[in-house]
Amino acid sequence: MALIVQKYGGTSVADAGRIKNVARRIAQVKDKGDQVVVVVSAMGDTTDELIKLAYQINDRPDERELDVLLSTGEIVSSTLLAMALEAMGYEAISLSGAQAGIRTDATYSRARIMRVDPERIVKELDKGNIVIVAGFQGITDEMDITTLGRGGSDTTAVALAASLGAGVCQIYTDVEGVYTADPRLVPEAQKLPEIGYEEMLELATYGARVMHPRAVELGELFNVPVLVASSFSDNPGTLIHGGVSMEVRNKVRGIAHDLDVAKITVVGVPDRPGTAASIFESLAKANISIDTIVQNASINNITDLTFTVARSQLRKAMEVAKPIAESIGARECVSDSRLGKVSIIGTGMQNTPGFAARMFRALSEHGINIQLITTSEIRITCIIDEARVKDAVRALHRAFELEKEG
Amino acid sequence: MALIVQKYGGTSVADAGRIKNVARRIAQVKDKGDQVVVVVSAMGDTTDELIKLAYQINDRPDERELDVLLSTGEIVSSTLLAMALEAMGYEAISLSGAQAGIRTDATYSRARIMRVDPERIVKELDKGNIVIVAGFQGITDEMDITTLGRGGSDTTAVALAASLGAGVCQIYTDVEGVYTADPRLVPEAQKLPEIGYEEMLELATYGARVMHPRAVELGELFNVPVLVASSFSDNPGTLIHGGVSMEVRNKVRGIAHDLDVAKITVVGVPDRPGTAASIFESLAKANISIDTIVQNASINNITDLTFTVARSQLRKAMEVAKPIAESIGARECVSDSRLGKVSIIGTGMQNTPGFAARMFRALSEHGINIQLITTSEIRITCIIDEARVKDAVRALHRAFELEKEG
Repeated sequence: MALIVQKYGGTSVADAGRIKNVARRIAQVKDKGDQVVVVVSAMGDTTDELIKLAYQINDRPDERELDVLLSTGEIVSSTLLAMALEAMGYEAISLSGAQAGIRTDATYSRARIMRVDPERIVKELDKGNIVIVAGFQGITDEMDITTLGRGGSDTTAVALAASLGAGVCQIYTDVEGVYTADPRLVPEAQKLPEIGYEEMLELATYGARVMHPRAVELGELFNVPVLVASSFSDNPGTLIHGGVSMEVRNKVRGIAHDLDVAKITVVGVPDRPGTAASIFESLAKANISIDTIVQNASINNITDLTFTVARSQLRKAMEVAKPIAESIGARECVSDSRLGKVSIIGTGMQNTPGFAARMFRALSEHGINIQLITTSEIRITCIIDEARVKDAVRALHRAFELEKEG
Repeated sequence: MALIVQKYGGTSVADAGRIKNVARRIAQVKDKGDQVVVVVSAMGDTTDELIKLAYQINDRPDERELDVLLSTGEIVSSTLLAMALEAMGYEAISLSGAQAGIRTDATYSRARIMRVDPERIVKELDKGNIVIVAGFQGITDEMDITTLGRGGSDTTAVALAASLGAGVCQIYTDVEGVYTADPRLVPEAQKLPEIGYEEMLELATYGARVMHPRAVELGELFNVPVLVASSFSDNPGTLIHGGVSMEVRNKVRGIAHDLDVAKITVVGVPDRPGTAASIFESLAKANISIDTIVQNASINNITDLTFTVARSQLRKAMEVAKPIAESIGARECVSDSRLGKVSIIGTGMQNTPGFAARMFRALSEHGINIQLITTSEIRITCIIDEARVKDAVRALHRAFELEKEG
């Protein structure tokens, strides 16, 4: 008898019919004799609707109150899913995050799980119950309700799988798994049967929004195998686990892209200590998230400093950067809002030369100009013209022969 | 500095605008320097909508799951009310029934409050917070959420007022207070500035649906003065308390009525031990609530047994009663579904003769035939033709000079 943790996202439980469908899937697992713990998100747009209601009443709602409000969404879906299983003749019980023992710090709206006290879950499993846990939420030591922020329900599921010693954490969502590239851009993209945690992290962070990076990190930390699959089909999905990077035939595993990139360049920055700090401190104070930062080698103690932000933050970022640039004696501050990003990702790239060259060659052969380059251990990213992102993803997919993957 | 407990019903917090309005009322109390604990119901039709959703999924939803589901309604309204107060610059915090220390038995859907552990509320009041408590809910010693059933939020408010030693429990609703009769039937009906617990109980049970009898009983038990008033006006309302019956100028305090009465008579019942028991045991098993029961004195060991039920239960009650009547050798079983009930109520009626006679005289002067009569210490009730209930209420209101009340 295995213990399986499953998670179903908001679109999978959006209405009564879909909740019944999810219940049938859970029942199939239970019928095999396994113990099942299920984590659910709030139904469809519930969370957005509750946020809207809160902002109608207070344009800066208190974070503690907002967390309590939002936590009701997952409680509703968890009770309905338990009822759906009971209607099919199965024993089931819903537990709130608090009852499930998800203990967090008191950082409202983006709390971190400190520990899991799974006694109640274990007790209910021992009674023969299917346990349905409200995702996205926990409780502080002062018994105040918190929510876990973006990717919260995925994180709940992986944390429960880790603390219960589950054989696998199954994340059911509205995509079929992890692909070598976005199938909407690359028709020949292949679903990966498996992928390593680090590769998945780079894919998730760089635009393949299948699963939140935070939940992947937690999986890696506790070595929990995570299956990502569709709740609308019986196709096998992608298993994210730690044992895949030992032997990789094809060393690039996937192409990630991002169409929402804007660039700001501060031109002619006097190269002395503290200039970069003064710019980025001001941007941080204005709550602007910086993505890539590139500074060229300085010539005559003058350098150019370039960074990228999401397009929606460009105007605000320019308002902050311009006066700072002036005050530090830079020549000017220019921006470009029509950029995109394309990345190749794979653990096999570590300590293996030639990947960057192949990438740049493939892009140049298609006449795609590279504006910025950044790299990590297992990733190479190029910032290019937004209009060429689609071509770039296809070209790279072919160049690294990813249509043979999967 | 006084401590005041207020309760606002679902219509008073039905949307963002009304929640803000309630927040302004609470702020006025806080401005006077008093400590305030507020109990809220779920917004508008939320509870009914959640019940509907549950029944779409399971036609016999588990009571534990249903209670968890329904409890979210009051949590939503409590957080929104706290946010509304914060938007006005007041310190406020919402607490679930569990956090507020409402400890109940495990009778899901109609749990009884066993005790209140108000430490958290006291702590938050001491910090200067206005405390908003989600009504209608509590928690068992096993940390499972329960709901209190009909009148639940009123009961929460009175229980909190009792355990916190509040000077008064203010129930704000969509009526102006307790009247000598239903103002829609009797234009000259007067609002009572005060009324005793027992009188209120009889009025509440017998059709004046201002406040649930259960909450009135709790008020009486702990001697908590309860003010019933409108959340949409600043009119004074009615104070329900224990000190009113010492001197009552007019001994009938109010006229209650009920238009939803059906009657079943088992004719020709052999008068031997156990016949009544066999009928009412079967009805109880079928979950049919019996209201009034009247058995006439037997003649030749044959008697008639009459009882009343809500109209919606008549068909089911007849299906149960007919075969039983046959089996005990009764002559027949007849029903009448077009009946109503009118009652006069007043503590001053105790040990004072003449009230019944005045009531029957007033009805007969208007040609209203009395079908059944039942009495309590402080109430006399007549079952009459439904079509004459309105006339009866008006006639009795005049006969006992209630237009001079208030």
